[in-house]
Amino acid sequence: MVSGIMPDVLVILGSKSDAPVGEKAVQLLRRFGVTAEMTVASAHRTPDRVKSLVLGSNAKIFIAVAGLSAALPGSIASITTKPVIGVPVSGKVNIDSILSIVQMPPGIPVAAVGLDGGDNAALLALEMFGIGDERIRGELVKYRMEIADQVERDSEEVHK
Amino acid sequence: MVSGIMPDVLVILGSKSDAPVGEKAVQLLRRFGVTAEMTVASAHRTPDRVKSLVLGSNAKIFIAVAGLSAALPGSIASITTKPVIGVPVSGKVNIDSILSIVQMPPGIPVAAVGLDGGDNAALLALEMFGIGDERIRGELVKYRMEIADQVERDSEEVHK
Amino acid sequence: MVSGIMPDVLVILGSKSDAPVGEKAVQLLRRFGVTAEMTVASAHRTPDRVKSLVLGSNAKIFIAVAGLSAALPGSIASITTKPVIGVPVSGKVNIDSILSIVQMPPGIPVAAVGLDGGDNAALLALEMFGIGDERIRGELVKYRMEIADQVERDSEEVHK
Amino acid sequence: MVSGIMPDVLVILGSKSDAPVGEKAVQLLRRFGVTAEMTVASAHRTPDRVKSLVLGSNAKIFIAVAGLSAALPGSIASITTKPVIGVPVSGKVNIDSILSIVQMPPGIPVAAVGLDGGDNAALLALEMFGIGDERIRGELVKYRMEIADQVERDSEEVHK
Amino acid sequence: MVSGIMPDVLVILGSKSDAPVGEKAVQLLRRFGVTAEMTVASAHRTPDRVKSLVLGSNAKIFIAVAGLSAALPGSIASITTKPVIGVPVSGKVNIDSILSIVQMPPGIPVAAVGLDGGDNAALLALEMFGIGDERIRGELVKYRMEIADQVERDSEEVHK
Amino acid sequence: MVSGIMPDVLVILGSKSDAPVGEKAVQLLRRFGVTAEMTVASAHRTPDRVKSLVLGSNAKIFIAVAGLSAALPGSIASITTKPVIGVPVSGKVNIDSILSIVQMPPGIPVAAVGLDGGDNAALLALEMFGIGDERIRGELVKYRMEIADQVERDSEEVHK
Amino acid sequence: MVSGIMPDVLVILGSKSDAPVGEKAVQLLRRFGVTAEMTVASAHRTPDRVKSLVLGSNAKIFIAVAGLSAALPGSIASITTKPVIGVPVSGKVNIDSILSIVQMPPGIPVAAVGLDGGDNAALLALEMFGIGDERIRGELVKYRMEIADQVERDSEEVHK
Amino acid sequence: MVSGIMPDVLVILGSKSDAPVGEKAVQLLRRFGVTAEMTVASAHRTPDRVKSLVLGSNAKIFIAVAGLSAALPGSIASITTKPVIGVPVSGKVNIDSILSIVQMPPGIPVAAVGLDGGDNAALLALEMFGIGDERIRGELVKYRMEIADQVERDSEEVHK
Repeated sequence: MVSGIMPDVLVILGSKSDAPVGEKAVQLLRRFGVTAEMTVASAHRTPDRVKSLVLGSNAKIFIAVAGLSAALPGSIASITTKPVIGVPVSGKVNIDSILSIVQMPPGIPVAAVGLDGGDNAALLALEMFGIGDERIRGELVKYRMEIADQVERDSEEVHK
Repeated sequence: MVSGIMPDVLVILGSKSDAPVGEKAVQLLRRFGVTAEMTVASAHRTPDRVKSLVLGSNAKIFIAVAGLSAALPGSIASITTKPVIGVPVSGKVNIDSILSIVQMPPGIPVAAVGLDGGDNAALLALEMFGIGDERIRGELVKYRMEIADQVERDSEEVHK
Repeated sequence: MVSGIMPDVLVILGSKSDAPVGEKAVQLLRRFGVTAEMTVASAHRTPDRVKSLVLGSNAKIFIAVAGLSAALPGSIASITTKPVIGVPVSGKVNIDSILSIVQMPPGIPVAAVGLDGGDNAALLALEMFGIGDERIRGELVKYRMEIADQVERDSEEVHK
Repeated sequence: MVSGIMPDVLVILGSKSDAPVGEKAVQLLRRFGVTAEMTVASAHRTPDRVKSLVLGSNAKIFIAVAGLSAALPGSIASITTKPVIGVPVSGKVNIDSILSIVQMPPGIPVAAVGLDGGDNAALLALEMFGIGDERIRGELVKYRMEIADQVERDSEEVHK
Repeated sequence: MVSGIMPDVLVILGSKSDAPVGEKAVQLLRRFGVTAEMTVASAHRTPDRVKSLVLGSNAKIFIAVAGLSAALPGSIASITTKPVIGVPVSGKVNIDSILSIVQMPPGIPVAAVGLDGGDNAALLALEMFGIGDERIRGELVKYRMEIADQVERDSEEVHK
Repeated sequence: MVSGIMPDVLVILGSKSDAPVGEKAVQLLRRFGVTAEMTVASAHRTPDRVKSLVLGSNAKIFIAVAGLSAALPGSIASITTKPVIGVPVSGKVNIDSILSIVQMPPGIPVAAVGLDGGDNAALLALEMFGIGDERIRGELVKYRMEIADQVERDSEEVHK
Repeated sequence: MVSGIMPDVLVILGSKSDAPVGEKAVQLLRRFGVTAEMTVASAHRTPDRVKSLVLGSNAKIFIAVAGLSAALPGSIASITTKPVIGVPVSGKVNIDSILSIVQMPPGIPVAAVGLDGGDNAALLALEMFGIGDERIRGELVKYRMEIADQVERDSEEVHK
Repeated sequence: MVSGIMPDVLVILGSKSDAPVGEKAVQLLRRFGVTAEMTVASAHRTPDRVKSLVLGSNAKIFIAVAGLSAALPGSIASITTKPVIGVPVSGKVNIDSILSIVQMPPGIPVAAVGLDGGDNAALLALEMFGIGDERIRGELVKYRMEIADQVERDSEEVHK
C-alpha cells in the first residue's frame, strides 16, 4: 500500500465510507508538512492486514477512523506502543462508536477525539510531534491564531 | 492452557474479573455434557494470545465475555468463522459493553446476549449444537420444562 | 405460507416494513445454498401465527427482524429451543429495539446482531450450520477472503 | 392458581423477584375493595402459562410487571383486548424495561407506568373501573385528598 | 371550544404541531362510534385552559399529546381521577418526552403509550370503555382480527 | 405555610425526600442575607397548592426541586413570569429529571441547574438579585474568591 | 465589537453556525426594549476573547449559545458573577451539549434552557430584569397572554 | 505549587475528590522515570489558576481529570498547543463527563481516555514521549509484556 517514503502518520479507515473523515486528517497533516497516508483496514474484516500495516509501518502515530462497534483504534493500540488516535464516525446510534473508542481497558490507551473529528485527530498528532519539534510547535501556535482570527471575522459577520 | 481433551466450547474472559459471568456458562454447558474450558485472553492486552487460542482450538463455539469497550467477541469473530457468542459485562456505563458487542459491522457476526448473561450464552451454544444433535435438543426441551416448572413453583410461593 | 420444500432458515419480519432488512438475510443464505423463506408475523399483532409458524416449521434456525419494542425474537425463543437470531430495526429511538432484543432474561437466549443487520444474521446462521457442515465452513472462509479482498480494493481506491 | 372468586385485576409478575412491585399494586387495589391476585408467569419462560392465565381469567384488567426486555405486558396485550398496564422494573440498565414496555407497535396498546410503579398501576386500574363505577370514582377523589393532605403535613415537617 | 354533545374522549394537544398524532386517535375513536374532540391546551402556556377544559368536560377519558418536557399528561392527571393517556411526540431528543410522561410520581398515574402513538392511545381508551361496554369489546376483537388479517396479507406480499 | 415576613426566595420541593437538596439552597441564600423559606408542593399531587403558593407569594424568585418526571419547575413557570430555577433530583434514571426540567417549550422558560444542585440554584438566584443589588454583587465576588482559595488549599493538600 | 451604547444582554455564540439560535434571543429582547448584541467567541478557540468581552462588557446578563462539548456558558460563568444563561445547540448527539451546560459543578451556576432555546433564554433574561423593573414585568404578563391567545386560536384551527 | 524541577507531565484535577484517579497517573509516570506533579485547578472555579499554571509550566503534556460538565481538559487545550489528555471521572450520570471531554469542537483537540482512566492517561503520555525517546519506547514494550504475562497468570488462576 504505502510505498516509497514512509509517512509520519498512517490514517487507517475501518471502512471506505469513513474516507471523508480521514481525508480531513490527511489534508491538515500535509498542510503542516507532515507526511500522511490513508488506507483501509478493518479490525473485524481484515485483522491480519491491520497487524501487518501497523507492524510494517514506520509511522510514528496512527489515526484510526471507525464507526459502529469501532474496534479499530483499540485493535491497533493492542499491537503497538506508538500513540493511537481514535476517531468515532457518526451513524444511526453515535454513542456506540464513541463509547467503543473511549472506554478502553487499563493498560492499552487510545486517544479519543470527537465524532467525525478527523481534523482534531490531525491536530492532536501534530501536538504530539510538537513535543520534540519546535517548527511544528510554532506552526500550531500560528494555526491557533488563524482560528481565533476567523472567530473574530465570523463575529463581525454575525454582528452586522 | 487447555490440555488433554479439547473442549467443545471455549469460554474466553477479557479479564479475570469476568470469571463469575463465564463460570455460569461453563457450569451450564457441563451439566449438558458439553466439554467447556475457561481461559483469560484480552483482545487489547493479549491479541496474540487471543489469536493462538482461537486458531489452535478445536472448540466448535467460542463464548467471549467482556466489559467496557468489549472488543473481545468481535476480535475472535474476526479470525474465525465458527460461531462467537458475546457476553457484555456490567460496569459503570453498561451501554458501552452492550453496544460494543452488538454493533458489529457487516460481514463479521457476533451473537450478543444480555448483560452478564453467561447462562444464556451457554444455552445459545447448546441450541447451536442442537441443530445436529438430537440428545442436546431433547435435553434443552427438558431444561425449558424445568424452568417453566420453577415459574409455577415461584407463582405458588408468591400467591400465598 | 411456506409450502413445498421447507426452508433451513425461516426469516420472520415483525412488520412488512422490515422487509429490506430481512431480504439481506434471505439473499445471503440462498447464495450459500441454504434454503430460506421470509414471512411476516408480529409477536404483538399475530401471536398465534408466530406460534403456528414456528412450531409448524422444520426450519433449523429462525431469524426474527423487528423494531420498536422488538418482542418477536424473544417471542419465538419462548416457544422453541432452536436458535433464534434477533435483528433490531432502526427507527426514531434505535436503543429501544436493540435493548428489547439483547436484554433477554436467564433461560431463554436470543442471539442479537446489530441494527438492521440482516446480513450478519444470515452469516451467523451459516456459522451455526457450519458446526456440522464442512461445505458451509469452507464457503464461509471463502466469503471472508472476498470481504478481505474488497477491503484491499477499497484501500487502493481511497489511497489514490 | 387463582381459585374461588375471580379477581377483578390479575397482577402477573415476569419473575418472582418482581413481587415487591406487584405487592404494592395488590395492596392498593384491595384497599379500594377491588379483588386482586398476584401470580408469576414469564412471557419468555412460560408463554403457554401466560396465555392460559389470561384467556382463562375473568379479570377485567391485567397488570404486568417485568424487567429487562420486559415482553410480558406486550405479550398479554397480544392475546386480549382487555386493558393491560405495564410496570417496568428497575435493574442495571432501566431504560431497557421502560422502552420495551412503552414502545409498542400500532394496534396493540399497553398502558405503561413508571419504573417500579406498582402503586400507579393499581391507581390507573381503579381509574379505569371508575369510568363505570361511581363508588370507586368517589374513593379515588378521597385518596387524592389524602395524598394532598400528606403533602401539606410533609411541608410542615420540612418547614420546621 | 367543545360544544353541543360532549365527547367521550377529549384529545388535548400540547401544541398545534401535535395535530397529526392526535388526529390518528380521533379518527380511530370515531370509527368505533365513540365521540371524540381534539383541542389544544398547553400545560406550560395555558395551565388555566387545561384546568377549565378538564374540569368542565364530561369526557370520560383524556388523551394528552405532547413533546419535549411533556408535562401535559401529568398536568391533566393532577386535576382529575379520570384515566389520562399520555402520548409522547417525537422531536430532536425523543427520550425527553417518553421519560417525562412515563416517570410519574406515586399517586398520580398516567398511562403512557409509545412515541407518536395516537392510534394506540385510542385503542387503549376503547379497551377501558370495553370494561363496561360489550359492543366495544366485540368491535375490538374484530379490529384485532383485521390487524391479524392484514399481517397475513402483508406476509403474502413479502413472500412473493 | 410561610408566615410573617415574606421570603425573597421560595424553595418548593416536589417531595419531602428532596429536602436535603432544597436545604442547600436555603442555607446558602440565608448566608447572603436573603430570606428564604422551604415548602413542599407537588405539581402532580397538589397542583392547587402550587398555584396558591406561587400566586400568593411575594417571593421574587422560585426554586423548584423535583425528581422523576420533574414537572414542578415548569408548572410554576406556567403561572408566573418571575424567574423559576429548576433543580433535577437524582434517582434511578437521572436523565428523566434533567430532561423534564431542561426541555421546556418556547415561551415558558425555566433556568435548569445540575443534578441535586441546590447550591447552584441559590447562587443563580443571588446573581439575579445582584443585577439590581450592589451588596449581593460584592458578596458573590467574595464568595467566588473563597471558592478559589479553597481550590488552592485543596491543591496543597493533594500536592503533599 | 460592541460599540456605542452597551447592551443589557450580550449574546455570545460559540460558533457562527449558532447564529439562528442566538438571533431568536436578540429579536425577542429588542421587542421588549432591552438592548442586545450578538457576537461570536468560542470558549475553546478564543478563550481570551471570551474573557475580554465578558470583563469589558457592561451587559447585565450573558446568553451563551453552544453545541457539542458546550463549554462556553460555564466558561463565561467562571469569570463573572453576573447571570449566565446557557443554550445547548442541537447536533448529532444532542445529549452532549445539554449535559455539558446543565451539569456545572457546585459554586459556578449556569441557567440552562432547552435545546436551541434562544427564545426561552431571552425570556429568562427578561424575567431576571423584571425582578427590579415593573415595566418589563408588565410586558411579560402581556406576552404570556398573547401566547395563551395563540393557543386558543390554534385550538380553533385544529378543532375545525 | 510546582517548585524546583519542572515536571514533564502536570496532572491537573478539577476537584480534590478526583485525586485517586490522578494519583494512578502520577504513580505510573514516575515508575517510568517521568517527573509528574499533581495539582488542583478548576476550569470553572479557578480559571485564572488554570491559565497561570498552564502558561507557567514547562510540562510537555497536561493530564486533566474532571467529572460532571468536565470543562477542564478543553479549557487547558484552549490555552496551549501542547497535548492535553482528558480523563472523565465517574459520578451519577457518567455520560456527562465522557461527552464533555470527547466532543471538542474542530481546532482544539483533547485526547480523551476512558472513565476514571488515570492509568491510561499516563500510558498515553508515555507513548507521546516515546515518539522521541527510545528508552521510554523500550520500557513501554516491557510494560506491555508484563501486562500480557499477568493475563496468562490470571488465566491459570481462573482455569483451576
